[in-house]
Amino acid sequence: MAGSSFGNIFRLTTWGESHGAALGVVIDGCPAGIALDVSDIQAYLDRRKPGQTKIATSRREDDAAEILSGVFEGMTTGTPVSVLVRNTSQRSGDYSEIANYYRPGHADYTFDAKYGFRDYRGGGRSSGRETVGRVAAGAVAAKLLREFGIELTAYTRSIGPVAVDMEKFDRQAILTTPTCMPDIEASARAEAYLADCMNSRDSAGGVIECRISGVPAGLGDPVFEKLDANLAKAVMSVGAVKAVEIGDGVEAALHRGSDNNDAFCMRDGKVAKASNHAGGILGGISDGSDILLRAHVKPTPSIFSPQKTVNRQGEEIEIAIKGRHDPVIVPRAVVVVEAMAAVTLADALLLGAGAKLENLKKIYGS
Amino acid sequence: MAGSSFGNIFRLTTWGESHGAALGVVIDGCPAGIALDVSDIQAYLDRRKPGQTKIATSRREDDAAEILSGVFEGMTTGTPVSVLVRNTSQRSGDYSEIANYYRPGHADYTFDAKYGFRDYRGGGRSSGRETVGRVAAGAVAAKLLREFGIELTAYTRSIGPVAVDMEKFDRQAILTTPTCMPDIEASARAEAYLADCMNSRDSAGGVIECRISGVPAGLGDPVFEKLDANLAKAVMSVGAVKAVEIGDGVEAALHRGSDNNDAFCMRDGKVAKASNHAGGILGGISDGSDILLRAHVKPTPSIFSPQKTVNRQGEEIEIAIKGRHDPVIVPRAVVVVEAMAAVTLADALLLGAGAKLENLKKIYGS
Amino acid sequence: MAGSSFGNIFRLTTWGESHGAALGVVIDGCPAGIALDVSDIQAYLDRRKPGQTKIATSRREDDAAEILSGVFEGMTTGTPVSVLVRNTSQRSGDYSEIANYYRPGHADYTFDAKYGFRDYRGGGRSSGRETVGRVAAGAVAAKLLREFGIELTAYTRSIGPVAVDMEKFDRQAILTTPTCMPDIEASARAEAYLADCMNSRDSAGGVIECRISGVPAGLGDPVFEKLDANLAKAVMSVGAVKAVEIGDGVEAALHRGSDNNDAFCMRDGKVAKASNHAGGILGGISDGSDILLRAHVKPTPSIFSPQKTVNRQGEEIEIAIKGRHDPVIVPRAVVVVEAMAAVTLADALLLGAGAKLENLKKIYGS
Amino acid sequence: MAGSSFGNIFRLTTWGESHGAALGVVIDGCPAGIALDVSDIQAYLDRRKPGQTKIATSRREDDAAEILSGVFEGMTTGTPVSVLVRNTSQRSGDYSEIANYYRPGHADYTFDAKYGFRDYRGGGRSSGRETVGRVAAGAVAAKLLREFGIELTAYTRSIGPVAVDMEKFDRQAILTTPTCMPDIEASARAEAYLADCMNSRDSAGGVIECRISGVPAGLGDPVFEKLDANLAKAVMSVGAVKAVEIGDGVEAALHRGSDNNDAFCMRDGKVAKASNHAGGILGGISDGSDILLRAHVKPTPSIFSPQKTVNRQGEEIEIAIKGRHDPVIVPRAVVVVEAMAAVTLADALLLGAGAKLENLKKIYGS
Repeated sequence: MAGSSFGNIFRLTTWGESHGAALGVVIDGCPAGIALDVSDIQAYLDRRKPGQTKIATSRREDDAAEILSGVFEGMTTGTPVSVLVRNTSQRSGDYSEIANYYRPGHADYTFDAKYGFRDYRGGGRSSGRETVGRVAAGAVAAKLLREFGIELTAYTRSIGPVAVDMEKFDRQAILTTPTCMPDIEASARAEAYLADCMNSRDSAGGVIECRISGVPAGLGDPVFEKLDANLAKAVMSVGAVKAVEIGDGVEAALHRGSDNNDAFCMRDGKVAKASNHAGGILGGISDGSDILLRAHVKPTPSIFSPQKTVNRQGEEIEIAIKGRHDPVIVPRAVVVVEAMAAVTLADALLLGAGAKLENLKKIYGS
Repeated sequence: MAGSSFGNIFRLTTWGESHGAALGVVIDGCPAGIALDVSDIQAYLDRRKPGQTKIATSRREDDAAEILSGVFEGMTTGTPVSVLVRNTSQRSGDYSEIANYYRPGHADYTFDAKYGFRDYRGGGRSSGRETVGRVAAGAVAAKLLREFGIELTAYTRSIGPVAVDMEKFDRQAILTTPTCMPDIEASARAEAYLADCMNSRDSAGGVIECRISGVPAGLGDPVFEKLDANLAKAVMSVGAVKAVEIGDGVEAALHRGSDNNDAFCMRDGKVAKASNHAGGILGGISDGSDILLRAHVKPTPSIFSPQKTVNRQGEEIEIAIKGRHDPVIVPRAVVVVEAMAAVTLADALLLGAGAKLENLKKIYGS
Repeated sequence: MAGSSFGNIFRLTTWGESHGAALGVVIDGCPAGIALDVSDIQAYLDRRKPGQTKIATSRREDDAAEILSGVFEGMTTGTPVSVLVRNTSQRSGDYSEIANYYRPGHADYTFDAKYGFRDYRGGGRSSGRETVGRVAAGAVAAKLLREFGIELTAYTRSIGPVAVDMEKFDRQAILTTPTCMPDIEASARAEAYLADCMNSRDSAGGVIECRISGVPAGLGDPVFEKLDANLAKAVMSVGAVKAVEIGDGVEAALHRGSDNNDAFCMRDGKVAKASNHAGGILGGISDGSDILLRAHVKPTPSIFSPQKTVNRQGEEIEIAIKGRHDPVIVPRAVVVVEAMAAVTLADALLLGAGAKLENLKKIYGS
Repeated sequence: MAGSSFGNIFRLTTWGESHGAALGVVIDGCPAGIALDVSDIQAYLDRRKPGQTKIATSRREDDAAEILSGVFEGMTTGTPVSVLVRNTSQRSGDYSEIANYYRPGHADYTFDAKYGFRDYRGGGRSSGRETVGRVAAGAVAAKLLREFGIELTAYTRSIGPVAVDMEKFDRQAILTTPTCMPDIEASARAEAYLADCMNSRDSAGGVIECRISGVPAGLGDPVFEKLDANLAKAVMSVGAVKAVEIGDGVEAALHRGSDNNDAFCMRDGKVAKASNHAGGILGGISDGSDILLRAHVKPTPSIFSPQKTVNRQGEEIEIAIKGRHDPVIVPRAVVVVEAMAAVTLADALLLGAGAKLENLKKIYGS
C-alpha cells in the first residue's frame, strides 16, 4: 500500500533504500512564494550527518541535496519540490551475510513476512537513511512556519540514565555537543555512558524532546486529525521510537485534575494559560502555548555481542553483527523528530485555512 | 478540514454532538460477507454506557444502536454500514452558562479560536459522546478480525497511583469491575482512591492497556503507515490521552540493546520471538507476537473545585463547574481504545492484501 | 474499498440502499459560519422527487431531510453535517424476482462478481436513490458557493433527438417543465417523444448541461486534481452517465487551433476572454469565464419489453421487467449533476486557500 | 494543494517542470515480486518521444529513464519505485518573451491567478513534458496488469476530420505510423491534413481511443470510485483533453433502452454479454467485456498565426508564438492515455482485493 506519503495538503512522499542509487522526497502542496534555496535543505541534512564524532559510525555520507523542481528564481512555485540525494558511500559487501538471517530488533523478518523477500543491503527501506527525505521536507516546512513566527527546537533530553538539567538549557549546545544535548555537562556524562556501552559491545536508548513556539491558537482538528494525534503518528513513524508524549504525557495520568488543568488567564490582552501541562494542545487544537512533545527511542538494535536468531531456512543460529553502527540512535534522530513535527504543523496550518467562512472571505472576497 | 474520518480502506466517519439529535458513524470499506447483527454493536456500546456505578455520572444514556444500511440478510454487503444512535438524555439547560467562558482542560477556547464559535452544549463535538461512533465501528472491525483469529483485550492498567497486579490478571473482571481492571483487589483500591478524589471535588487519571493476540506477521507498512504509528494516532486521537506506548515503550529508552532486543527462535515450526519487548511490531510491521500498547489518560478536567479562567469578553473570572461528571475517564475509555485499535488493525489487514503479487494471484488467478 | 466518499477538504460520504431503512450523507469539512437550514436541503431534494408528472415513476417518495449534526443556532459549526432521509415507500415485494437474475444494463451481475452477493431490492446501493445524499451535500455546497457569488444552473439539454433551442433559454422553465428543459416548446416535443418510447415499452437517453458562473480565476490544480478532471469524475460517477464534456468538448477535437483558442482581452479592468471554447478552465485551473459541462446519459435500462439475460445458475432466460420506472433518467439527474458540480467547486475553493503564501498571511498574519 | 498524486493504493506522484533539471515520478504501493527492468519503462517513454517525424517538433529529447529505488535483483520490492528523467534539451531562451504575457489556450494566466507567478519556461509544470512521469508509471502498471492477462491498446482514432476505418484495424501500425493510427491509409490522409494545418500556421485536434481487454468482472466500485469515473478523471487530467466517453458514450444518449442494453448470455461456461454498448462497465464495476474509452483532444494551442491577448500589465497586445510545437497533440498523447488507464486499472485491482471476506481468507487463511 502507498505508505510512503505523509500529510494531507502539505504532503511529502519519500523514496529510496540505504544502498540504492539515491534517496529523496517529493514535497507537494507547498504554497507558492516561499524563498527557498538548496542551502536551507542542506543545513538540515547536515544535522543528521554521521561520521562527525566518536559516538557515530565512521561511514562517510555527504548527503548533498539537489532541488530538481518546484523552485523558480529562488521561490517555491506551488508545484512539487523534488529533492534528490545520491548515495555515495554504500558498501554492499558489508551486508551480504545478513541476507539469509533475521537480525533481532530489525525489520528483516517482518519485511520477508510482508513482501516475500527484501532488499537486505543496509536495512534497505527501513534503514535510518530513509529519514533523509523526511529531513529535507522538514527543512521546507520549517521555512514556511517561520513566515508565521513558528519555531521548532528539538534536542536530546536523555541518553540511557543521563538526563539534561533543564535549568542549564543552552540552545547553542544542541548543535555543538555530539549528543545534541542542550547541556554540556550532561552531554559529557552521556558520552562516558556511551563509551561504556561500546566497551561492552552494547548500545543505549534515550529521549528526544521537541518544543514548538509561536503556534497560533486554532490549528488542528477536534476528532481524528487532532494535532496531537498527527504529531504522535509523525513521531512514532520514525524508526526506533517506542513511545510519544504530549505535554506532561505519562505524568499527567498520575496527577489530579486540580493540578493538571491549566487555568486560562489574560496576558498582553490575549487569552493565555497560567501553566502548560497540556503541552499546547486542547481537544486536538493548538491553544497558543508552546507545543511540547517527547519521543522515547529504543537502543540501537545492531550490537556487536553475539545474539540468537533464526535464518530463512528456519534454523536457530547465533550471530555477531559487524559493520558500522552508532551506539545510540538519539542524536541523529533529533533533527528527524523536529522535521516530522514541522511537516505536521505545516499541514495543520494549510488545513486550517478554510476552517471558517471568515477566513475564506479574506482570500476570495465576497 | 474533513477530519472526522479514520482509516484508508476500512474507513469510518463519525458525526454528532453531545446534545444534538443523534450521533453516528458510517463504516465504509468493510468487506462483504461478514455476519453482522445490531447486537454485535450494542454489546460494545454497552461497555461505554455510564450510569452503572457510583464512580460514573448518573446521566442515563441508552445508546440504542440502529443499523441503517450495508447489511442484508444478516451479512455485510460491502457497502457503507451506517449506525445511528439517538441522543435521548441531553439536558441543554445544564450547560448554558458555559457558553460564555472557557473551562480549563477543555476545548472550549480552542474551538472558538478555530471556528469562531462553538456548540457549547455538553462539549459539543469534543464531548466524550463522540466516541459512540468509534465504538460502533470498533465492534464491526472486531467481527472482521475475529474471522482471522485476532482478538483484542483492553483494560484499565492503573488509576492514579493504583496499578493492576498483572500476576493476578483476571480477564472476566474487566467486564465486572466498575474500573474495568482485570484485578478485583486493585479495583477495590482504585475505587477507594476515586472516592477520595470525589470528596476533595477532584479527579484522577490512569492508564489503559490493550493486548492484541493472533496477529499474523506482515501487517503494517515500513514508513509512514507503520502499524505502531497508526496505532499511536488512533489512540492519541481519543480525547484526554496524553501519551502512547508500544511494547516496553518508555522503559525501552532506559535499556541497553542487549536486553531490549528480542531474540528470534523457532516455535511450533514457525518463526517466533523469545521475548516481546518490541510489543509485536518491528520496523512498523507486525512480527506475529502479541501487540501491546498503553494509553496514558489525563484526569477528568471537569472538577467541582473553583477554578480560574477567562470568559469570551476577555475577563478573568473564577468558576465552579456543575453537572454530572465522572471522576475518572479511564474505565469508559477502555472500550474506545480497544475500538480504535481494532479499526487500525482491520485497515492494515485490508491494506496488506495487495502487498505482493503472490497475494493478488490467489484472488485473481493469473 | 472505501468508495463512498468524495472530495478532499469539503468531503461527503453517502450511505444507504434503495430499500433499506434510510439513506443519508455526512458532509465533513464544511467551513463554520454558513447559515444553513433544513429547508435549504429540502429544496434541492424536492427537485429530484419523482411522482410529479406522467413521465416519472408513480412511486411516492417524500424524502424528508433531517439535519442531525453540525448546525447550531442556524449556522454550520465546522463539524460534520449529517443528513438523514428515511425510506418510506419501499415495496420490497416488487423486486423479489430479480434476486435471481441479472438485468441488462444494471449492476446486478457486477455486484455479484465483486461482492459475491447483493442487496437486490430496488438496485440496492446502485439505485438512483443513492443520489439523495449527493443532492443534500450539493445543497450545502451551493450555499457556501453563493457566499462568493458562484451560481450553478443545470438543465436538460436534450432528450433523445429533441434538443433545447438555446436562443429561447428560459431559466424559470427548468423548474416548471417536467423535462427540466429551459425551453417550453422543446419540452413539449420531448414529452411527445417520451410518450412514444413508453408506448413501445422502451426508454430514452439525453444530455444534461451545467453552467457555473461567478467562478474566480485560479481554482483547481495543474496536474491530477485539475478542476475539469474532478468535474469529470464527479459527473461520470452519477449512474448512467456515459460521457462528459467540458466547454466545446467533443467539438473541440474537430476544430483548428485558430478557432478553438480563446483570445484574452481586458473587460472592466480585468483579464477576460473574448470567447469561451475552453469552458472556463485552462490547464486544470478556472480562468474566470463560466464553466460549462455536459453529461451524456444512457436510456433507462429498465424497459418493459422482453429481454434476454442469464440467471445466477448460469442459465440463459428471457425476462420482462415490471414495476415503476421512468422512461428517461435525465430530468431527475439534472439536480444530481448540479450537486456534484457544486461539491467539486466547494472542494476546489477550500483547497485553493493555501495555494500561495500571500493567502495564508491574510488569515494568520505574519 | 497536493495535487500531483493519483491513485489510492497503486499511487503515483509526478514532479518536474519542462525546463527544470529533471522530471520524474514516485510509484508507491506497487506490489512486491513483479519483474521490472528500466527497459520496460524506456519502451513506454520512447513512444512519447518527439523529433521522430515531420509532424512532431524538432526538439530532441532523449528521456533516458533511471530507476532509483524500489527494485532489487530485477524485482519490485513493494517499496516506492522512483524514476528520474533528466532534462537535456531545454533552451530557456526560446521562452523568455512569454514570461510577460498570457498565451491563448495555455495555462499562463490561470497559473498567475492561482500562484501569483509561474515558471514560464516552456509551460513549466503544465508542459506536456509533465507526462513523462505518468508514462513511466503506466509502464509499471502495465507490467502488473499483464500478470493477470489485462492488456491495453491505445491509438489515434481520428485527427481533425480524418478517422480510422476500424474495419482495417492494424495493431502494428499504431507503433509505425507517425499519427499512431492503426490504419495506414487513414494515417496518410491525416498527415496530409496536418501538412495543410502547418501551411496555414494552424493546428489540429483529434480523438484517442483505448481498449482494455482481459479485465476480470468485479473491478471498480459502485459509488464515487466507479471505474468509469476514475478513468474519466485519469484521462481528463491529461492536458488538452476536453471530453471523455465510455463505451458508446455520446451515442448512448441518442439511443433507446432496447438497443443500448447489452443482453447477458453464456459463453464458454461464463457470464458474458451479447454486445458491448456499455464499454465493459456496469454500475461502476467491470463486467468482463473489453473496456473502451475515448478522449477528445483539443488542437495544439501554440500556433504561429498572430493572436490577440493581454500581458501581465493588463495591456491588450498581439503576439506570434515562436519555437517548436507539434501541429497536433494526439499522437504523443496516445501513450499517455494508455498509461493513465493502466494506473487506474492497477489501482482498482489492488483496491478490489479486500472486497469480500472470501478474498481475504485466501490470503490470510482463517
